[in-house]
Amino acid sequence: MATIADVAKYTGLSSATVSRVINDYPHVSEDKRKLVHDAMKELGYFPNTSARNLRNRKTNVVAVLIPRLTNPFFTLILDGIERVAEANGFQLIICQTKSSKKKEIDFLNLLQTKQVDGVIFTSIENEWEYIQPYTAYGPIILCNEYHHEATVPMVRLDQIQGSYLGTRHLIEKGHKKIAYCMGSTSGLSFDRRLGFFKAIEEAGIDMKSDWIFRDTYTMEDGKRVFQQILQLSDRPTAIFTGGDEVASAMVKEARTHGLHVPRDIAILGFDDQPIASLIEPELTTIYQPGDEIGARAMTVFIECLNGIRERMSQAVIELPLSLVIRDST
Amino acid sequence: MATIADVAKYTGLSSATVSRVINDYPHVSEDKRKLVHDAMKELGYFPNTSARNLRNRKTNVVAVLIPRLTNPFFTLILDGIERVAEANGFQLIICQTKSSKKKEIDFLNLLQTKQVDGVIFTSIENEWEYIQPYTAYGPIILCNEYHHEATVPMVRLDQIQGSYLGTRHLIEKGHKKIAYCMGSTSGLSFDRRLGFFKAIEEAGIDMKSDWIFRDTYTMEDGKRVFQQILQLSDRPTAIFTGGDEVASAMVKEARTHGLHVPRDIAILGFDDQPIASLIEPELTTIYQPGDEIGARAMTVFIECLNGIRERMSQAVIELPLSLVIRDST
Repeated sequence: MATIADVAKYTGLSSATVSRVINDYPHVSEDKRKLVHDAMKELGYFPNTSARNLRNRKTNVVAVLIPRLTNPFFTLILDGIERVAEANGFQLIICQTKSSKKKEIDFLNLLQTKQVDGVIFTSIENEWEYIQPYTAYGPIILCNEYHHEATVPMVRLDQIQGSYLGTRHLIEKGHKKIAYCMGSTSGLSFDRRLGFFKAIEEAGIDMKSDWIFRDTYTMEDGKRVFQQILQLSDRPTAIFTGGDEVASAMVKEARTHGLHVPRDIAILGFDDQPIASLIEPELTTIYQPGDEIGARAMTVFIECLNGIRERMSQAVIELPLSLVIRDST
Repeated sequence: MATIADVAKYTGLSSATVSRVINDYPHVSEDKRKLVHDAMKELGYFPNTSARNLRNRKTNVVAVLIPRLTNPFFTLILDGIERVAEANGFQLIICQTKSSKKKEIDFLNLLQTKQVDGVIFTSIENEWEYIQPYTAYGPIILCNEYHHEATVPMVRLDQIQGSYLGTRHLIEKGHKKIAYCMGSTSGLSFDRRLGFFKAIEEAGIDMKSDWIFRDTYTMEDGKRVFQQILQLSDRPTAIFTGGDEVASAMVKEARTHGLHVPRDIAILGFDDQPIASLIEPELTTIYQPGDEIGARAMTVFIECLNGIRERMSQAVIELPLSLVIRDST
């Protein structure tokens, strides 16, 4: 394997000069730069990136972990991250975990081997204790998703308030039987449920365990849950879906079964994705400023990398959600 | 064993020029190229073994370049790539180019610095001559997108047939004034236009330049183009959109303007994304097996990496498209 010495010998330059070119130092003439780069290609010399990155502590590459690319809310977060990354000379690589614990850890190894400067999580699959050790290798920022015990900066949305606003809206529309669709066991899901039950309890409404549906994320989940709801003897009159994809699939499923939305059943979305205003009836939903939390998370990441912000202690930055009333409720 | 210096001496060219030929860089005359190749044969020169050894070093990470994560067709391709990658122990990192030439080259540097084993392109922004030099560093596979001059494996869909089928369908429905929305100047766009005009010419239909719209990719583009169509004095009765996102936004825009789809204007999608069957009326569209070409591309990638398939010569694997008739035409 070619070494720096080989490049020096081939070009007739000193090893010091070759090293200056490789590490992109100033005060090297363009001629010498070109000579070295050509020789590197010729000899098949590749700088040992791991070693170099360890020394320089920067790759200017950030890994963003997201569960599912098909969910437009996450791509909106990515847009915000990317905007700030680009303005500051960072490259993003996107790692899709597909909600797999193993994949999440595999991607964290990119941080351990210094192939990236740090990681932004938009969703977490493993328990926090399995993530924590990786904070030794670079900044880890949680964006959107959060764990109450995580000791890193978290940029998140006020999920308690969001689900409270949506549930209150359904109650004000006269609904007393409301189905609740939930996701995982993360901090986000936990808080969203808190907001839902806060509104339910304030209104003194009964809640049946039959009306709670777990692991609902995708359009397929929406279709499945809607069919389950149709089978219930005591059927809810409104559904809190937790996501516009789930809600959209339910609107279509209602149409298929000849049910009118919202007259026969009201459906509340979450996120305010583009689809929310494309389908008929347009979805009442909770607007989540994904672009904004993405941008904030990347800003916080850069602050941590530059040592302006403490990266290994808990700090919470929380943004508000808002209700968008359209025609599905 | 002969060296580069020997080839340079034999041909009377500089080592740099010889190196450019060996690495297949642009801006070298055909004469010099031939001179070098002849000399290489003559002297029995084989490219540097160290470089080849380095090329064999594996990271088990593959970069997938995609233009826009918000387009579900590309996430479908990714699903196919991922399925085969996972089964073979490869990790994917996803690089969003946002159709930027510069970002595309920045991501290719991950290949040059050996942070990834190779690259799968689902869309290409730069002219092929700027991509070609990177084939020296590992397999580059084109998936979906293609360039007629690219000398790498390409897994693609028969776009000529796809747009021909769709346009024929509109003509059979009695349309004689058909607007055409196109994308970039890639091989894909070129072929899709061939299929469209083949059907138009076979039917002996006139085409006005006013009815051709460029750079239409997103929902925003769909809204913009539909508004432009409404302003035309001689308005088309059908629209070939080239994408379900564009088509969906047009269906919504038609609704906003009190126009009935397909009675007042027929709208043909492309891709068969989930949204195609969620909106009202459901979209007639061209089904593109994104998952399938993704899976094939990853299979081809592994074959190249393992030396079972030649990675630096053109090979085309083409899959068919099909028409899905719903209610928008």
